[in-house]
Amino acid sequence: MTTTSKGEETRRNILQSSLAMASRLGLDGLSIGSVAKEVGMSKSGLFAHFDSKEDLQLQVLHTGVEHFVRQVVTPALMEPRGEPRIRALFENWLSWSSYLPGGCPFIAAAAEVDDKPGPLRDYLAASQKDWLAVLANAARIAKEEGHFRADVDPEQFSYRMNGVLLAHHHSARLLRDPESEERARSSFGELLAGVRSA
Amino acid sequence: MTTTSKGEETRRNILQSSLAMASRLGLDGLSIGSVAKEVGMSKSGLFAHFDSKEDLQLQVLHTGVEHFVRQVVTPALMEPRGEPRIRALFENWLSWSSYLPGGCPFIAAAAEVDDKPGPLRDYLAASQKDWLAVLANAARIAKEEGHFRADVDPEQFSYRMNGVLLAHHHSARLLRDPESEERARSSFGELLAGVRSA
Repeated sequence: MTTTSKGEETRRNILQSSLAMASRLGLDGLSIGSVAKEVGMSKSGLFAHFDSKEDLQLQVLHTGVEHFVRQVVTPALMEPRGEPRIRALFENWLSWSSYLPGGCPFIAAAAEVDDKPGPLRDYLAASQKDWLAVLANAARIAKEEGHFRADVDPEQFSYRMNGVLLAHHHSARLLRDPESEERARSSFGELLAGVRSA
Repeated sequence: MTTTSKGEETRRNILQSSLAMASRLGLDGLSIGSVAKEVGMSKSGLFAHFDSKEDLQLQVLHTGVEHFVRQVVTPALMEPRGEPRIRALFENWLSWSSYLPGGCPFIAAAAEVDDKPGPLRDYLAASQKDWLAVLANAARIAKEEGHFRADVDPEQFSYRMNGVLLAHHHSARLLRDPESEERARSSFGELLAGVRSA
Protein backbone atom coordinates (compact mmCIF):
# COMPACT_ATOMS: atom_id res chain seq x y z
CA MET A 1 0.00 0.00 0.00
CA THR A 2 1.44 3.34 -1.00
CA THR A 3 1.60 6.32 1.36
CA THR A 4 -0.95 8.11 -0.78
CA SER A 5 -3.52 5.35 -0.58
CA LYS A 6 -2.96 5.00 3.18
CA GLY A 7 -3.47 8.74 3.55
CA GLU A 8 -6.61 8.48 1.46
CA GLU A 9 -7.89 5.64 3.64
CA THR A 10 -7.29 7.65 6.81
CA ARG A 11 -9.02 10.62 5.29
CA ARG A 12 -12.05 8.47 4.40
CA ASN A 13 -12.24 7.05 7.92
CA ILE A 14 -12.17 10.54 9.39
CA LEU A 15 -14.95 11.67 7.08
CA GLN A 16 -17.02 8.59 7.86
CA SER A 17 -16.84 9.18 11.62
CA SER A 18 -17.41 12.89 11.16
CA LEU A 19 -20.54 12.30 9.11
CA ALA A 20 -22.05 10.18 11.89
CA MET A 21 -21.08 12.90 14.41
CA ALA A 22 -22.60 15.62 12.22
CA SER A 23 -25.91 13.77 12.04
CA ARG A 24 -26.14 13.95 15.84
CA LEU A 25 -24.38 17.21 16.68
CA GLY A 26 -24.67 19.22 13.48
CA LEU A 27 -21.78 20.68 11.51
CA ASP A 28 -20.92 22.97 14.41
CA GLY A 29 -20.25 19.90 16.51
CA LEU A 30 -17.32 19.11 14.20
CA SER A 31 -14.48 20.97 15.84
CA ILE A 32 -11.00 19.75 14.90
CA GLY A 33 -10.57 18.85 18.59
CA SER A 34 -13.74 16.78 18.93
CA VAL A 35 -13.14 14.93 15.66
CA ALA A 36 -9.50 14.22 16.58
CA LYS A 37 -10.71 12.74 19.86
CA GLU A 38 -13.40 10.65 18.13
CA VAL A 39 -10.98 9.12 15.62
CA GLY A 40 -8.06 8.86 18.05
CA MET A 41 -5.70 11.24 16.27
CA SER A 42 -3.82 14.34 17.31
CA LYS A 43 -5.13 17.72 16.19
CA SER A 44 -2.00 18.26 14.10
CA GLY A 45 -2.51 14.83 12.51
CA LEU A 46 -6.00 15.91 11.53
CA PHE A 47 -4.75 19.22 10.15
CA ALA A 48 -2.60 17.22 7.75
CA HIS A 49 -5.84 16.11 6.07
CA PHE A 50 -8.04 19.21 6.38
CA ASP A 51 -7.01 22.83 6.15
CA SER A 52 -9.62 24.14 8.56
CA LYS A 53 -12.81 23.34 10.40
CA GLU A 54 -14.76 24.69 7.43
CA ASP A 55 -12.83 22.50 5.00
CA LEU A 56 -13.64 19.46 7.16
CA GLN A 57 -17.33 20.45 7.35
CA LEU A 58 -17.50 20.88 3.59
CA GLN A 59 -15.86 17.50 2.96
CA VAL A 60 -18.32 15.93 5.40
CA LEU A 61 -21.24 17.35 3.43
CA HIS A 62 -19.65 15.96 0.23
CA THR A 63 -19.35 12.56 1.90
CA GLY A 64 -22.98 12.77 3.04
CA VAL A 65 -24.11 13.46 -0.51
CA GLU A 66 -22.09 10.46 -1.78
CA HIS A 67 -23.86 8.23 0.75
CA PHE A 68 -27.24 9.76 -0.09
CA VAL A 69 -26.82 9.17 -3.81
CA ARG A 70 -25.70 5.58 -3.17
CA GLN A 71 -28.47 4.78 -0.67
CA VAL A 72 -31.41 6.73 -2.04
CA VAL A 73 -31.00 7.83 -5.66
CA THR A 74 -29.00 5.15 -7.49
CA PRO A 75 -31.05 2.11 -6.37
CA ALA A 76 -34.28 3.93 -7.32
CA LEU A 77 -32.94 4.41 -10.86
CA MET A 78 -32.89 0.60 -11.17
CA GLU A 79 -36.66 0.56 -10.65
CA PRO A 80 -39.09 0.90 -13.58
CA ARG A 81 -39.74 4.46 -14.77
CA GLY A 82 -42.74 6.28 -13.33
CA GLU A 83 -44.60 5.57 -10.12
CA PRO A 84 -42.49 2.50 -9.11
CA ARG A 85 -39.38 4.69 -9.20
CA ILE A 86 -41.04 7.42 -7.16
CA ARG A 87 -42.16 4.86 -4.58
CA ALA A 88 -38.57 3.60 -4.39
CA LEU A 89 -37.26 7.14 -3.86
CA PHE A 90 -39.76 7.53 -1.02
CA GLU A 91 -38.95 4.21 0.68
CA ASN A 92 -35.21 4.74 0.25
CA TRP A 93 -35.50 8.15 1.87
CA LEU A 94 -37.39 6.67 4.85
CA SER A 95 -34.47 4.25 5.29
CA TRP A 96 -32.02 7.12 4.86
CA SER A 97 -33.66 9.02 7.71
CA SER A 98 -32.39 6.36 10.12
CA TYR A 99 -29.23 5.36 8.22
CA LEU A 100 -27.06 7.62 10.39
CA PRO A 101 -27.34 7.72 14.20
CA GLY A 102 -28.74 11.26 14.28
CA GLY A 103 -31.03 11.16 11.25
CA CYS A 104 -30.61 13.13 8.05
CA PRO A 105 -27.45 15.26 8.30
CA PHE A 106 -28.73 17.68 5.66
CA ILE A 107 -31.81 18.63 7.69
CA ALA A 108 -29.61 19.21 10.73
CA ALA A 109 -27.20 21.29 8.65
CA ALA A 110 -29.97 23.31 6.97
CA ALA A 111 -31.01 24.85 10.27
CA GLU A 112 -27.40 25.72 11.04
CA VAL A 113 -26.29 27.30 7.79
CA ASP A 114 -29.45 28.90 6.37
CA ASP A 115 -28.50 32.30 7.79
CA LYS A 116 -24.74 31.97 7.24
CA PRO A 117 -23.67 32.84 3.69
CA GLY A 118 -20.60 30.94 2.54
CA PRO A 119 -19.42 27.72 0.92
CA LEU A 120 -21.27 25.41 3.36
CA ARG A 121 -24.58 27.10 2.71
CA ASP A 122 -23.93 27.21 -1.06
CA TYR A 123 -23.04 23.54 -1.26
CA LEU A 124 -25.94 22.39 0.91
CA ALA A 125 -28.48 24.51 -0.97
CA ALA A 126 -27.16 23.25 -4.33
CA SER A 127 -27.33 19.61 -3.25
CA GLN A 128 -30.86 20.05 -1.86
CA LYS A 129 -31.91 21.64 -5.15
CA ASP A 130 -30.43 18.62 -6.91
CA TRP A 131 -32.53 16.34 -4.73
CA LEU A 132 -35.74 18.29 -5.40
CA ALA A 133 -34.88 18.15 -9.12
CA VAL A 134 -34.51 14.34 -8.90
CA LEU A 135 -38.04 14.18 -7.46
CA ALA A 136 -39.44 16.61 -10.05
CA ASN A 137 -37.78 14.67 -12.84
CA ALA A 138 -39.22 11.40 -11.55
CA ALA A 139 -42.66 13.04 -11.55
CA ARG A 140 -42.08 14.23 -15.13
CA ILE A 141 -41.30 10.65 -16.17
CA ALA A 142 -44.42 9.42 -14.35
CA LYS A 143 -46.44 11.81 -16.54
CA GLU A 144 -44.70 10.51 -19.69
CA GLU A 145 -45.48 6.95 -18.64
CA GLY A 146 -49.12 7.89 -18.15
CA HIS A 147 -49.00 7.11 -14.41
CA PHE A 148 -49.54 10.75 -13.39
CA ARG A 149 -52.09 13.06 -14.96
CA ALA A 150 -50.90 15.42 -17.71
CA ASP A 151 -51.77 18.52 -15.66
CA VAL A 152 -49.55 17.59 -12.68
CA ASP A 153 -46.85 20.20 -11.97
CA PRO A 154 -43.63 18.20 -11.35
CA GLU A 155 -42.02 20.93 -9.20
CA GLN A 156 -45.17 21.18 -7.10
CA PHE A 157 -45.17 17.39 -6.64
CA SER A 158 -41.52 17.55 -5.58
CA TYR A 159 -42.28 20.33 -3.08
CA ARG A 160 -45.13 18.34 -1.56
CA MET A 161 -43.19 15.07 -1.41
CA ASN A 162 -40.38 16.93 0.34
CA GLY A 163 -42.95 18.16 2.87
CA VAL A 164 -43.96 14.59 3.69
CA LEU A 165 -40.30 13.64 4.21
CA LEU A 166 -39.63 16.65 6.44
CA ALA A 167 -42.79 15.97 8.49
CA HIS A 168 -41.57 12.41 9.05
CA HIS A 169 -38.11 13.54 10.14
CA HIS A 170 -39.60 16.10 12.54
CA SER A 171 -42.09 13.65 13.96
CA ALA A 172 -39.76 10.66 14.23
CA ARG A 173 -36.64 12.48 15.47
CA LEU A 174 -37.96 15.24 17.71
CA LEU A 175 -41.32 13.85 18.80
CA ARG A 176 -40.23 10.16 18.71
CA ASP A 177 -43.71 9.39 17.40
CA PRO A 178 -43.81 5.62 16.78
CA GLU A 179 -46.61 6.12 14.23
CA SER A 180 -44.64 8.58 12.14
CA GLU A 181 -43.51 6.13 9.46
CA GLU A 182 -47.07 4.88 9.03
CA ARG A 183 -48.37 8.46 8.84
CA ALA A 184 -45.70 9.32 6.29
CA ARG A 185 -46.72 6.34 4.13
CA SER A 186 -50.40 7.35 4.37
CA SER A 187 -49.52 10.95 3.47
CA PHE A 188 -47.48 9.78 0.50
CA GLY A 189 -50.33 7.49 -0.60
CA GLU A 190 -52.76 10.42 -0.41
CA LEU A 191 -50.34 12.58 -2.37
CA LEU A 192 -50.04 9.91 -5.09
CA ALA A 193 -53.81 9.39 -5.17
CA GLY A 194 -54.21 13.08 -5.96
CA VAL A 195 -51.89 13.06 -8.99
CA ARG A 196 -52.50 9.61 -10.45
CA SER A 197 -54.29 9.38 -13.79
CA ALA A 198 -57.74 7.81 -13.54
CA MET B 1 -40.72 51.88 39.07
CA THR B 2 -39.70 49.33 41.68
CA THR B 3 -36.46 47.39 41.49
CA THR B 4 -38.39 44.21 40.80
CA SER B 5 -40.24 45.57 37.77
CA LYS B 6 -37.03 47.11 36.41
CA GLY B 7 -35.33 43.73 36.81
CA GLU B 8 -38.27 42.10 35.06
CA GLU B 9 -38.05 44.62 32.20
CA THR B 10 -34.32 43.95 31.76
CA ARG B 11 -34.97 40.23 31.78
CA ARG B 12 -37.64 40.62 29.09
CA ASN B 13 -35.31 42.69 26.91
CA ILE B 14 -32.60 40.07 27.21
CA LEU B 15 -35.04 37.32 26.23
CA GLN B 16 -36.35 39.35 23.31
CA SER B 17 -32.86 39.90 21.86
CA SER B 18 -31.90 36.31 22.58
CA LEU B 19 -34.94 34.98 20.74
CA ALA B 20 -33.98 36.93 17.62
CA MET B 21 -30.40 35.62 17.97
CA ALA B 22 -31.63 32.05 18.43
CA SER B 23 -33.67 32.25 15.22
CA ARG B 24 -30.45 32.99 13.30
CA LEU B 25 -27.81 31.09 15.25
CA GLY B 26 -29.77 28.39 17.02
CA LEU B 27 -29.86 27.79 20.77
CA ASP B 28 -26.16 26.92 20.75
CA GLY B 29 -25.45 30.44 19.52
CA LEU B 30 -26.73 31.72 22.88
CA SER B 31 -23.61 31.70 24.99
CA ILE B 32 -23.72 33.96 28.04
CA GLY B 33 -20.84 35.90 26.45
CA SER B 34 -22.48 36.47 23.07
CA VAL B 35 -25.80 37.47 24.62
CA ALA B 36 -24.10 39.84 27.07
CA LYS B 37 -22.34 41.49 24.13
CA GLU B 38 -25.59 41.74 22.12
CA VAL B 39 -27.52 43.42 24.94
CA GLY B 40 -24.58 45.50 26.19
CA MET B 41 -24.29 43.95 29.64
CA SER B 42 -21.50 42.28 31.56
CA LYS B 43 -21.49 38.51 31.87
CA SER B 44 -21.98 38.79 35.61
CA GLY B 45 -24.92 41.16 35.04
CA LEU B 46 -26.48 38.52 32.82
CA PHE B 47 -25.84 35.78 35.39
CA ALA B 48 -27.99 37.79 37.82
CA HIS B 49 -30.95 36.97 35.56
CA PHE B 50 -30.15 33.45 34.36
CA ASP B 51 -28.50 30.66 36.30
CA SER B 52 -26.80 29.06 33.33
CA LYS B 53 -26.66 28.91 29.55
CA GLU B 54 -29.27 26.15 29.63
CA ASP B 55 -31.58 28.22 31.84
CA LEU B 56 -31.29 31.10 29.35
CA GLN B 57 -31.96 28.75 26.40
CA LEU B 58 -35.04 27.32 28.11
CA GLN B 59 -36.41 30.78 28.91
CA VAL B 60 -35.82 31.77 25.28
CA LEU B 61 -37.89 28.81 24.11
CA HIS B 62 -40.64 29.84 26.58
CA THR B 63 -40.53 33.37 25.16
CA GLY B 64 -40.71 31.98 21.62
CA VAL B 65 -43.81 29.97 22.50
CA GLU B 66 -45.43 33.09 24.01
CA HIS B 67 -44.83 34.95 20.74
CA PHE B 68 -46.03 32.01 18.69
CA VAL B 69 -49.28 31.71 20.62
CA ARG B 70 -49.85 35.47 20.34
CA GLN B 71 -49.00 35.68 16.61
CA VAL B 72 -50.34 32.39 15.28
CA VAL B 73 -52.82 30.65 17.59
CA THR B 74 -54.80 33.34 19.44
CA PRO B 75 -55.79 35.43 16.40
CA ALA B 76 -56.94 32.26 14.58
CA LEU B 77 -59.28 31.48 17.47
CA MET B 78 -61.10 34.74 16.67
CA GLU B 79 -61.95 33.34 13.23
CA PRO B 80 -65.11 31.27 12.61
CA ARG B 81 -64.86 27.60 13.56
CA GLY B 82 -63.90 25.13 10.83
CA GLU B 83 -62.09 25.82 7.58
CA PRO B 84 -61.80 29.63 8.09
CA ARG B 85 -59.93 29.01 11.35
CA ILE B 86 -57.63 26.46 9.70
CA ARG B 87 -56.89 28.92 6.89
CA ALA B 88 -56.04 31.54 9.50
CA LEU B 89 -53.68 29.14 11.29
CA PHE B 90 -51.95 28.51 7.96
CA GLU B 91 -51.62 32.19 6.99
CA ASN B 92 -50.50 33.17 10.49
CA TRP B 93 -47.82 30.49 10.38
CA LEU B 94 -46.57 31.78 7.01
CA SER B 95 -46.20 35.22 8.64
CA TRP B 96 -44.56 33.61 11.65
CA SER B 97 -41.90 32.03 9.44
CA SER B 98 -40.54 35.51 8.70
CA TYR B 99 -41.50 37.19 12.00
CA LEU B 100 -38.00 36.71 13.41
CA PRO B 101 -34.82 37.49 11.43
CA GLY B 102 -33.75 33.84 11.12
CA GLY B 103 -37.13 32.20 10.57
CA CYS B 104 -38.89 29.81 12.94
CA PRO B 105 -36.75 29.33 16.06
CA PHE B 106 -38.39 25.99 16.84
CA ILE B 107 -37.32 24.42 13.54
CA ALA B 108 -33.77 25.63 14.13
CA ALA B 109 -33.85 24.27 17.68
CA ALA B 110 -35.37 20.92 16.65
CA ALA B 111 -32.28 20.01 14.64
CA GLU B 112 -30.06 20.94 17.58
CA VAL B 113 -31.78 19.17 20.44
CA ASP B 114 -33.38 16.11 18.86
CA ASP B 115 -30.44 13.91 19.88
CA LYS B 116 -29.79 15.62 23.23
CA PRO B 117 -32.07 14.35 26.00
CA GLY B 118 -32.80 16.99 28.64
CA PRO B 119 -35.09 19.87 29.55
CA LEU B 120 -34.62 21.75 26.24
CA ARG B 121 -35.59 18.73 24.18
CA ASP B 122 -38.51 17.92 26.51
CA TYR B 123 -39.89 21.43 26.39
CA LEU B 124 -39.51 21.81 22.63
CA ALA B 125 -41.08 18.41 21.91
CA ALA B 126 -43.99 19.18 24.27
CA SER B 127 -44.64 22.55 22.67
CA GLN B 128 -44.48 21.07 19.15
CA LYS B 129 -46.96 18.38 20.22
CA ASP B 130 -49.21 21.17 21.50
CA TRP B 131 -49.03 22.86 18.10
CA LEU B 132 -49.85 19.65 16.22
CA ALA B 133 -52.76 19.15 18.63
CA VAL B 134 -54.03 22.68 17.84
CA LEU B 135 -54.07 21.74 14.15
CA ALA B 136 -55.72 18.36 14.80
CA ASN B 137 -58.34 20.00 17.00
CA ALA B 138 -59.08 22.60 14.33
CA ALA B 139 -59.56 19.74 11.84
CA ARG B 140 -61.90 18.00 14.30
CA ILE B 141 -63.99 21.18 14.51
CA ALA B 142 -64.01 21.43 10.70
CA LYS B 143 -65.54 17.94 10.65
CA GLU B 144 -68.17 18.96 13.23
CA GLU B 145 -69.01 22.03 11.15
CA GLY B 146 -69.43 19.83 8.09
CA HIS B 147 -66.54 21.52 6.25
CA PHE B 148 -64.37 18.39 6.27
CA ARG B 149 -65.59 14.89 5.45
CA ALA B 150 -66.54 12.64 8.35
CA ASP B 151 -63.82 10.10 7.49
CA VAL B 152 -60.94 12.60 7.73
CA ASP B 153 -58.35 11.65 10.37
CA PRO B 154 -57.56 14.90 12.28
CA GLU B 155 -54.08 13.74 13.36
CA GLN B 156 -53.26 12.77 9.79
CA PHE B 157 -54.43 16.19 8.58
CA SER B 158 -52.25 17.86 11.21
CA TYR B 159 -49.23 15.77 10.14
CA ARG B 160 -49.72 16.72 6.50
CA MET B 161 -50.31 20.41 7.21
CA ASN B 162 -47.10 20.41 9.27
CA GLY B 163 -45.33 18.94 6.24
CA VAL B 164 -46.46 21.85 4.07
CA LEU B 165 -45.18 24.34 6.67
CA LEU B 166 -41.82 22.57 6.99
CA ALA B 167 -41.42 22.39 3.20
CA HIS B 168 -42.01 26.14 3.02
CA HIS B 169 -39.47 26.88 5.73
CA HIS B 170 -36.86 24.66 4.03
CA SER B 171 -37.52 26.14 0.62
CA ALA B 172 -37.75 29.77 1.69
CA ARG B 173 -34.90 29.80 4.24
CA LEU B 174 -32.29 27.44 2.79
CA LEU B 175 -33.09 27.55 -0.92
CA ARG B 176 -34.32 31.19 -0.92
CA ASP B 177 -36.93 30.08 -3.45
CA PRO B 178 -39.06 33.17 -4.22
CA GLU B 179 -41.94 30.90 -5.30
CA SER B 180 -42.04 29.02 -2.01
CA GLU B 181 -44.94 30.92 -0.45
CA GLU B 182 -47.02 30.43 -3.59
CA ARG B 183 -46.12 26.72 -3.66
CA ALA B 184 -47.03 26.40 0.01
CA ARG B 185 -50.42 28.01 -0.63
CA SER B 186 -51.05 25.66 -3.60
CA SER B 187 -50.02 22.65 -1.48
CA PHE B 188 -52.34 23.74 1.31
CA GLY B 189 -55.16 24.28 -1.20
CA GLU B 190 -54.62 20.76 -2.56
CA LEU B 191 -54.57 19.37 0.95
CA LEU B 192 -57.87 21.11 1.77
CA ALA B 193 -59.43 19.97 -1.52
CA GLY B 194 -58.69 16.37 -0.50
CA VAL B 195 -60.48 16.57 2.86
CA ARG B 196 -63.36 18.94 2.12
CA SER B 197 -66.88 17.52 2.07
CA ALA B 198 -68.46 17.54 -1.36
